[in-house]
Amino acid sequence: MKKLVAEFIGTLWLVLGGCGSAVLAAGFPELGIGFVAVALAFGLTVVTMAYAIGHISGCHLNPAVSIGLWMGGRFEGKELVPYIIAQVLGGIAGAGILFTIASGLPGFELGGFAANGYGEHSPGGYSLLAAMVSEVVMTFIFLFVILGATHSKAPKYLAGLAIGLCLTLIHLISIPVTNTSVNPARSTSQALFVGDWALDQLWLFWVAPIVGALLAGVVYKYLSPEKD
Amino acid sequence: MKKLVAEFIGTLWLVLGGCGSAVLAAGFPELGIGFVAVALAFGLTVVTMAYAIGHISGCHLNPAVSIGLWMGGRFEGKELVPYIIAQVLGGIAGAGILFTIASGLPGFELGGFAANGYGEHSPGGYSLLAAMVSEVVMTFIFLFVILGATHSKAPKYLAGLAIGLCLTLIHLISIPVTNTSVNPARSTSQALFVGDWALDQLWLFWVAPIVGALLAGVVYKYLSPEKD
Amino acid sequence: MKKLVAEFIGTLWLVLGGCGSAVLAAGFPELGIGFVAVALAFGLTVVTMAYAIGHISGCHLNPAVSIGLWMGGRFEGKELVPYIIAQVLGGIAGAGILFTIASGLPGFELGGFAANGYGEHSPGGYSLLAAMVSEVVMTFIFLFVILGATHSKAPKYLAGLAIGLCLTLIHLISIPVTNTSVNPARSTSQALFVGDWALDQLWLFWVAPIVGALLAGVVYKYLSPEKD
Amino acid sequence: MKKLVAEFIGTLWLVLGGCGSAVLAAGFPELGIGFVAVALAFGLTVVTMAYAIGHISGCHLNPAVSIGLWMGGRFEGKELVPYIIAQVLGGIAGAGILFTIASGLPGFELGGFAANGYGEHSPGGYSLLAAMVSEVVMTFIFLFVILGATHSKAPKYLAGLAIGLCLTLIHLISIPVTNTSVNPARSTSQALFVGDWALDQLWLFWVAPIVGALLAGVVYKYLSPEKD
Repeated sequence: MKKLVAEFIGTLWLVLGGCGSAVLAAGFPELGIGFVAVALAFGLTVVTMAYAIGHISGCHLNPAVSIGLWMGGRFEGKELVPYIIAQVLGGIAGAGILFTIASGLPGFELGGFAANGYGEHSPGGYSLLAAMVSEVVMTFIFLFVILGATHSKAPKYLAGLAIGLCLTLIHLISIPVTNTSVNPARSTSQALFVGDWALDQLWLFWVAPIVGALLAGVVYKYLSPEKD
Repeated sequence: MKKLVAEFIGTLWLVLGGCGSAVLAAGFPELGIGFVAVALAFGLTVVTMAYAIGHISGCHLNPAVSIGLWMGGRFEGKELVPYIIAQVLGGIAGAGILFTIASGLPGFELGGFAANGYGEHSPGGYSLLAAMVSEVVMTFIFLFVILGATHSKAPKYLAGLAIGLCLTLIHLISIPVTNTSVNPARSTSQALFVGDWALDQLWLFWVAPIVGALLAGVVYKYLSPEKD
Repeated sequence: MKKLVAEFIGTLWLVLGGCGSAVLAAGFPELGIGFVAVALAFGLTVVTMAYAIGHISGCHLNPAVSIGLWMGGRFEGKELVPYIIAQVLGGIAGAGILFTIASGLPGFELGGFAANGYGEHSPGGYSLLAAMVSEVVMTFIFLFVILGATHSKAPKYLAGLAIGLCLTLIHLISIPVTNTSVNPARSTSQALFVGDWALDQLWLFWVAPIVGALLAGVVYKYLSPEKD
Repeated sequence: MKKLVAEFIGTLWLVLGGCGSAVLAAGFPELGIGFVAVALAFGLTVVTMAYAIGHISGCHLNPAVSIGLWMGGRFEGKELVPYIIAQVLGGIAGAGILFTIASGLPGFELGGFAANGYGEHSPGGYSLLAAMVSEVVMTFIFLFVILGATHSKAPKYLAGLAIGLCLTLIHLISIPVTNTSVNPARSTSQALFVGDWALDQLWLFWVAPIVGALLAGVVYKYLSPEKD
């Protein structure tokens, strides 16, 4: 149960921190932080929680991460569903807090919140195919780095930093394509508030990250030095 | 006494570095650093001092941190008041040095300095409710990360980095809302120079961070693995 | 063989991440990430892969790195050619994925992709001499830092971070000069897609990095404390 | 002798990397890196060299650092003069390489290079008094952090990172005031190329950093836990 509370709080923070920086600060006139700092913010949610709850729940914060770790032989299958539920609920709670703060601005309009999308709802207007390739490949690499950095032969104290900075890097590349998901819980939390097209397109941000994560589990197992 | 001198110098640096980057550099024409670098600067004051004085005083630099650590069972109650006094005085000294430098610019006007505010004194114009929610939640997470990253089961060498980057992240999200406090000493140091509305609104930046810190102490104690 | 697969995936990521952030995100209207985040992205590809595959292949991702490590006495000569082939192929695969994503934008034009160049193809218009000096010196320092940070007397857990941040720093300085190579595999991957002038100028981005790397191997050997 | 070669190369890199990012990249149209990345670049020169040559020479790269460490009881007085000479020569070599690259741009004008200045030669126009206070305080904190982070009770593997990020932070605050020195070797290297006013004002960038460094040595000694 403590693990699930930790995952709930951690995913709450991922959504509040990552999507929050995008919604509240990215476009602030003149001094706004832009994509680069949104990318930094998403990564730092993981860095901070890795050191805060890594020793409690493993700090997944993402259904695709839990699934990839399971496929890579690092996580028990029976814990999968409870973790995913805690992550989705945590994401929704984070979105709720963000909505409460954001709507304290006179004249606030929800717009696209920080939802993920493709085609006309891609920030840059990228096609469904480009979006799918991007989400599959980005999640593949994300899980590949997670499996490598938490391997027993890697310097373990740095894993949290390397994994968080990987999420930053993924955002530096792919925000213009899909607004970057690689995390179904994050996508769901925003789509529930936006509704409409965001819910229609939500399937992609479950399917593509999970496909990428499963591939990474298979590939890393092949590459992995004998002792896990 | 050495602990108090360390807290004094550390908090001086937090205010001089964090508020200083905002006042001196954020809005410099064309090449100015913007919110993202102010966020980075606040975080780096903590990172640098964590490694400089962490082994002397614990490097709190913030009354809310001292209170949250006390509630979490990591800090002696009898040290609370001296620490808070040293932090507030250090913050004021940092603001004094900053004022001395800033006023060396011909035509300098104090304006809002780097004071915290809500309503019409929020950088983005956010309401009191939004400001309160933001400060409570941000300080809650800040202390949650501090309590987690300094737990005996976490990789302790990285704690200073993770905690400093958490403060950066908090600023990336919430500068537009309140100019980000989560630290009553930092808020007080600026309000004393600005006077007027900044003093009127100062109560919020004592109450909200302390409430968030107390909540984090309670929640983390529940989650915490047995051995602290 | 596992080492070569690891180098292939790692170099794929270096090109997809570094060049990808440049092609997809650097110039996005208003919120684009600019040179600073492209520099960060290149560095983070190395940081992330260092912790993911450092314990498998050593994470070179760059023919100049393999050659410099060989000259410095840290890498077997017989592994040199297979490593370089895996790196070049990985780079091309990364460029292919990037092309697939980028061409999903209606109206996409390849332009210079993220190719390296000098003279009229230097981002800032720098001469061949300036480009050559820049690439030789930057690669010299890159290998000097790699040889130093992976020395047995250096704190080894931090090597991946220091080396990745060195690549970031190199980009912060020299993107305007040559678009920054210091890596023949990265340059080749882009030149093959751009063709024309990029292929004509490609020689420089093999010769200069290799010269710099060889020099660093010689100098560091002289400086190096007795035990490697 | 190896120590002096290491200091020479390290200070060469500090000037080439830090001043180079300022001269070559800071003001590039639209995508330029601005003050924030110049600040990052200076810090990363120290981070990268700390892990490359820290175990050879201690990686001072700065006469004020050598003097402060000597005052703090961490460095032999008889090594002071050779170190300072190697640092100044390294800085000049770095400025020479930078000049060679920068002058490869058609229409290049030296202008202020990356020299430090006050009054009308301060980037923002700050007075001599503001400049002096800024340089003394910034160098004081820099040495305070160096002495703390390299203390035997601090987590030593992180010292290079903390110290480098401290230099970044110092630049985030004070570039507008003096273009940030805190390092007489860096200032001298630029002033020799600019001549004129930069040489006239150079005295401040020797006196103020050294005063700050000496103060830090005294204060840290008082604060320092018994065992160095």
